[in-house]
Parts: sequence; C-alpha cells; structure tokens
Amino acid sequence: MERGEQLSGWLRERLGYEPRNPALFHTALTHRSAGSPNNERLELLGDAVLGLIVVQYLYERFDSADEGSLSRLRAHIVSGASLAQIAASLALGQWLVLGAGELKTGGDRRESILANALEALCGALYLDGGLPAAREVMLRALGPALERLELPVELKDAKTRLQELLQARGLSLPRYRIVAVEGALHAQVFRVTCEVEPLSMRATASGSSRRRAEQAAAALVLARLPPWG
Amino acid sequence: MERGEQLSGWLRERLGYEPRNPALFHTALTHRSAGSPNNERLELLGDAVLGLIVVQYLYERFDSADEGSLSRLRAHIVSGASLAQIAASLALGQWLVLGAGELKTGGDRRESILANALEALCGALYLDGGLPAAREVMLRALGPALERLELPVELKDAKTRLQELLQARGLSLPRYRIVAVEGALHAQVFRVTCEVEPLSMRATASGSSRRRAEQAAAALVLARLPPWG
Repeated sequence: MERGEQLSGWLRERLGYEPRNPALFHTALTHRSAGSPNNERLELLGDAVLGLIVVQYLYERFDSADEGSLSRLRAHIVSGASLAQIAASLALGQWLVLGAGELKTGGDRRESILANALEALCGALYLDGGLPAAREVMLRALGPALERLELPVELKDAKTRLQELLQARGLSLPRYRIVAVEGALHAQVFRVTCEVEPLSMRATASGSSRRRAEQAAAALVLARLPPWG
Repeated sequence: MERGEQLSGWLRERLGYEPRNPALFHTALTHRSAGSPNNERLELLGDAVLGLIVVQYLYERFDSADEGSLSRLRAHIVSGASLAQIAASLALGQWLVLGAGELKTGGDRRESILANALEALCGALYLDGGLPAAREVMLRALGPALERLELPVELKDAKTRLQELLQARGLSLPRYRIVAVEGALHAQVFRVTCEVEPLSMRATASGSSRRRAEQAAAALVLARLPPWG
C-alpha cells in the first residue's frame, strides 16, 4: 500500500477523520530537515487554531474562573511536553518525514518535533475540514489531558468550593437569596444571603453584582464551617 | 434611546454587525474597574480568535513567507499599539464602561484598555456569530493596518523580488523551466532554469524541490542584474 493511503488510514482510524486532501497531512508531518515543503507554516497556523480550541473549551467549562486561571490552564495544556505526550499516544512519530540526520539521532521521538507536528496536523485539519472538524479531532485527542484538568483549590471560587464540600458529605446545596438591592442604577449594591439548611448556617454579604455578593456570602459560610476531615 | 439600543446601532453602523445578544457586547466593553461581569474572560477568548484570524490571513496572503516572517508580521498587527489605534478609529472609547477612578484619569483613551476591549469585542463577535462573522468584522476593521503590511525586502524570496524589479521596469516576467529531475524518489534533485528574455539573461540552479531550485535560479539572476536606479 502506498504511503498516502496508509496515512489516510491512520487519520481515519486513530483520529476519526477522513482527509479530503491527504497531501496537506503529508506536509504537516514533514519536518524541515526533510526539505521543502515542510510543516513550519502549518505549525504556526495550527498553533493559533489549537490555542482557540483550548481557550474556548476552558472558557465554557470553567465558567467562573478568572482569565488568569484560564490562561494558566491553557499554558499547561498546550505546553511542548503535554503536546508531545499526546502525539506519542497517537503514535504520530511513525508518520514523521525526517531528514537522514534527524532520523539517525531519534528525531521521531524528540519532544519538540512531536509537539510541532501535532500543531501542524491541527493546522491541516483546519484547512481541510474547517474549525468544527479540527475542534472535534483535537478535543478527542486532548481528552485524557483535559479530563485531568482541575482548577487548583485556591483558584476555585467560594461558591464552587462550598458546593463541593457539601456534596462530598451528601448534604443539600446552599440556597442564595437576594435580600436587598440598593443604590442608583449604575452603582447598585446587592445584599445576598447564603443558607445551608442542614447545618443551620446562614451568612449575609454585599457586592456590586449579584454574583459578587453570592461569592462573598459563600466565603463567609466557608470560613465558619466546622473542621471536617 | 437606551444604551443597549445605541450600542447595537454602533455595532450595525461602524462594524456592519447585527448583534443577537447585545448583553454580550455590553460585557465586552465593560472594564474590570466597573465591577463584574467585565470583559477579562472575553478578552482572553478574543485574543485567541483574533490570533487565528490574523495568522490565517497572513498564511494565505504571504504564501511563500516562512513562519518566522509570518510570526513577526502577526506580532506587529496584534500589538497593543496597533489594536488601540484600530479601537480609536472605531470610536470604541465612547462605549467603554469604566469605574469612576478610571474615568477621571482618562481610562477611555488608555492604550491597554482600548486594545483589550477590542479583543473582548472580537470574543463577543465569535460567541455571537461564529468564526466567519468575527473574521469578516475584524478583517474589515484591521483593513488599513493590513494593507500597509509588506514583507521587508530582505524577507521576500528571490522570485518575488525579481518579479517586482522586472514589473517596475515594465519588463515581461521571468520564465522557469525544469531541465532535469535526478535521483531516487525520496532524494530527488531538481534542475531549473530561470530566463529573463528582454535582458537575455539565464541562470540554472538545483534544489531538493522545484520551488527551491526556482528560488536559487532567481537569486542567481538577481545577483547579476545591471545596477538600475
């Protein structure tokens, strides 16, 4: 069987993607040591595509995380080490086209070469099938890495932490109620109560938005929780 | 008229975009100094969207530039100074929602605040209308900045430089011909001739691909051109 067909077979079986233009994927897997055209331009494009896919995923999944936390999670997922690991799990190295020198020195297992090829592959998916195709394939490939992701405890907001602590003990969830809205339309102050019925706990706090007031009230309850453990 | 309607009018008239969810655009234009929700998360998303739009544009327009040149051009276009200038040209500052302190100190004209709001706007466009909508609006807004872009002469490839020099003198374009292809399938060497008929010039060069051989032949002709000026 010809290389082009084999490569298409791998894309179909390992990535669930049927390429329209297999030559594009051949280029995506050609390292510059093998001459021109190679995957350097596709890598630049794929880096941008992957960046968007990952940021949107994080944006939607961690809907109360601030941009600093999202940015740190993104950096972790698209790091060279993380991408190389994913490339290895797809057995991408066997499809790399390398110059003789790189081949001799194990370039098909080098982290940067694998990570860059995965980005170039993402660029090829984008050009070949559009953003939805690239997103579907890449999120599936990133799946295990994404599932392991968790906001570090200190980055979780108070409402999330309180909810998780109560759930872990089988207690019913806290209830938030607005008890007052004061001030002019553009300088409103919200007063909100957070109540944890099974513990007979209640705290009231204020904030410049409903969400801020709820977070502040949850933080007060958290601070007063009995020492479990 | 209510602010929401006025904002929608501005989006329609200045950006040619009809928002489905105007509240998203209100958030995109709300600086963190004005409380929460603000535009910080949308800015992170929009930065990734804009990055992809600009990289794809450069990838398609400069189809013989290497990734280093493309990367430098991208950095130039998405720099804070460049984005702030574009935001100012759209009169975006008037729609910013700022805290009292920022308002007093001229925050609506501060470069970083304008640039970040433009990125957040791009994020809102993406969530509201998808990548095609964001691309259309942003490329139109970036238009003048993109038109001024030129690959620095030293970054242009030899074929492009030769073609531009000949065109500037009204001479017909060079002709490239493959004169030999030698070697095994995976180690082929191409020999190509570049001929400039009106100057009776011809050069032959080799390369590991047709394109490389053409570039090398063009470079030889360039080096031998008479000193025009």
